[in-house]
Amino acid sequence: MKKIYSVFVENRAGVLCKVAGLFWRRCFNIDSLAVGETDDKTVSHMIIVSSGEKNTLEQIEKQLNKKLDVIKVKTYDEQDTVCRELMMIKVKYNRSNRRDIMENCSIMGAQIIDMSGSFMTIQICDTPERVQMFLNTFRTISIVEITRTGTLAVPKCIETQ
Amino acid sequence: MKKIYSVFVENRAGVLCKVAGLFWRRCFNIDSLAVGETDDKTVSHMIIVSSGEKNTLEQIEKQLNKKLDVIKVKTYDEQDTVCRELMMIKVKYNRSNRRDIMENCSIMGAQIIDMSGSFMTIQICDTPERVQMFLNTFRTISIVEITRTGTLAVPKCIETQ
Repeated sequence: MKKIYSVFVENRAGVLCKVAGLFWRRCFNIDSLAVGETDDKTVSHMIIVSSGEKNTLEQIEKQLNKKLDVIKVKTYDEQDTVCRELMMIKVKYNRSNRRDIMENCSIMGAQIIDMSGSFMTIQICDTPERVQMFLNTFRTISIVEITRTGTLAVPKCIETQ
Repeated sequence: MKKIYSVFVENRAGVLCKVAGLFWRRCFNIDSLAVGETDDKTVSHMIIVSSGEKNTLEQIEKQLNKKLDVIKVKTYDEQDTVCRELMMIKVKYNRSNRRDIMENCSIMGAQIIDMSGSFMTIQICDTPERVQMFLNTFRTISIVEITRTGTLAVPKCIETQ
């Protein structure tokens, strides 16, 4: 079972450590983690995707709510959210593979955002599944660097709380 | 001074804690953090943007290199990298503001990726400055939720190491 935790925390030194530590101390798996700012400079927002038994996932939520630095915890099931992930890859291009790269990007809605020397940097922002699919199309092209964020998630319907 | 750290670490419980803890114990500021998978399931990739004095930033790099779980550390200056950030926002729409929302998205290259009830979810993937600029255009429209990743960075030229 997969669960998505949206956790608003005080933007203070060590808070990320405390929250992440809670997962790890109990051997709960973190599939992905994204940390970003919010409109309020004193508040950070973490999106944590975790998988495990229903009971343990509920336990995590309770434990998170107990933390002093945690302002708000919301949990979502995967199917009720819109998930996106950002990946950037740098590939080596030449005259023979350039067209392939461009067509792969065009098919999957990715953008070439930099060309320096014989390297192209490509960005794709899509569902985690499609990002992986895009990456697979580059298996035959020499990838120099891959960097990707964790999953971002926004619930489809507004919560009634 | 701003510095971008690209840190490859063992994908093991507690490693993120150790790395992030290194920054916080020394009161080094973390401006943003993105953690994602790599091609190798046993390795995670962290992009940390930090600001501070030149000396302290060099200190951080040295300390990171000393950690056992850290496989590789690379640092970049902001101007030598291609930076991107992903933001998703959920807004409440109605007949009177729908056109404004659509036009804002079209101008800034953002996509409407979900409509449920009277809510739209929008994604934008751009430089941190342009993501902020896009957010500012929505000040007059009621934003229900904002979630954003940290900055991803890829160096423009390949390193010679």
